[in-house]
Amino acid sequence: MPDIESRLAAIERKLQEAEDRLAIYQLIASYGPSVDSNSFEAVKNLWTEDGVYDIPSGRRVGREEVGRVIETDLHKSLVARGCGHVLSLPHIVISGDTAVATGYQNVFAREGKTWLVERTSVHRWELVRLSEGWKVKHRIARMLDGTEAHRAILGRAVRVPDSQ
Amino acid sequence: MPDIESRLAAIERKLQEAEDRLAIYQLIASYGPSVDSNSFEAVKNLWTEDGVYDIPSGRRVGREEVGRVIETDLHKSLVARGCGHVLSLPHIVISGDTAVATGYQNVFAREGKTWLVERTSVHRWELVRLSEGWKVKHRIARMLDGTEAHRAILGRAVRVPDSQ
Amino acid sequence: MPDIESRLAAIERKLQEAEDRLAIYQLIASYGPSVDSNSFEAVKNLWTEDGVYDIPSGRRVGREEVGRVIETDLHKSLVARGCGHVLSLPHIVISGDTAVATGYQNVFAREGKTWLVERTSVHRWELVRLSEGWKVKHRIARMLDGTEAHRAILGRAVRVPDSQ
Repeated sequence: MPDIESRLAAIERKLQEAEDRLAIYQLIASYGPSVDSNSFEAVKNLWTEDGVYDIPSGRRVGREEVGRVIETDLHKSLVARGCGHVLSLPHIVISGDTAVATGYQNVFAREGKTWLVERTSVHRWELVRLSEGWKVKHRIARMLDGTEAHRAILGRAVRVPDSQ
Repeated sequence: MPDIESRLAAIERKLQEAEDRLAIYQLIASYGPSVDSNSFEAVKNLWTEDGVYDIPSGRRVGREEVGRVIETDLHKSLVARGCGHVLSLPHIVISGDTAVATGYQNVFAREGKTWLVERTSVHRWELVRLSEGWKVKHRIARMLDGTEAHRAILGRAVRVPDSQ
Repeated sequence: MPDIESRLAAIERKLQEAEDRLAIYQLIASYGPSVDSNSFEAVKNLWTEDGVYDIPSGRRVGREEVGRVIETDLHKSLVARGCGHVLSLPHIVISGDTAVATGYQNVFAREGKTWLVERTSVHRWELVRLSEGWKVKHRIARMLDGTEAHRAILGRAVRVPDSQ
């Protein structure tokens, strides 16, 4: 029955890719609720054991240290005002058991009767598939401040190979 | 043919979950266009017959009353300025015929030459699968204002069972 | 084997629709990184050869002209400040080899220590499936400014047929 077998194999491969995309959306959609509710375990568990979060204030290595991002004075002051880390629908490229997601993050915080955009940054998430699911191996964030650093992160995601 | 049967069953189960996630994204992506265009029927039809929308200004019970959220003076003044209810990519947990989606909503409204973030709030959507598709049974919104209410909604979505 | 055949056929049809939705999310998530990194080829390649981008400043016809949207003085000044074109999770309706996606776009740009919402607009993307994937045939953007134009774009997406 080669026909059924080949159809099943094609279906399984395509379905796996769809599930991977949805799992990566879910991972990224978990970040905001985790940090904005001060859920240390939830933040920590998004990363691999030795995962890195490279942010403008410094490089955090290992998921314990990444999780402690919620303990900074800056984070505490944002949470006290009311803050939302809102991640955009990411661009995703999957290659087997690794993937790269690229997108924006806005941090909104209350200021009087409206909310300010405290930060807009771009994020590159390098992900790996472990037995327990997709995890962050390396995430880099750069402020959207007109310097080359953030444009390079965005451009790398959408580069057209033939045109280089 | 146990092998083909079990593969088909696994595929059907996983595909259903993927379709459910995509249907819930679609439902949530419908809310903004519905309220911002004053489409009463479209707003109403997102909820179940007896669905609830629990917002800071009060609790709306039944989809007729929920749909009339577009008739408030506040909503009319926002629409007159130009407003967008922009929902974030939600975190979703599906359990059979029910699901919970958690995310953020920003309301942007024009003010002179730029737009203000009039409101940032967090939303928990309790959904049910009916014969006509996924509908909102209960949705609660709380302002992102530094009080415990919004953090509890976010934290509930990402709580790590083992760590409690 | 009618049973297996009909199950496979149903699976293939549903999986195609899920893949189409995910491919359209990916296309839309590519736009911001493309324009914000000044990636002409990447912007251009989102459109069909004769695709149109109808924006408040004028109608751009053909993907070369669409790609040159990054060459305007307005775009250059935004990029110099640091800017993010952030597209919302879109509402999508697929009909065979065509699709319509509707959603919001916010342009955030740095201003001192925070970011301003320079523009909030609504977007209707008319898409076609080509051999190389989904492409934009026609995209229209209208400012969220309280005029009827943007409400019409949003309302058209969510209109309930039975209620008209």
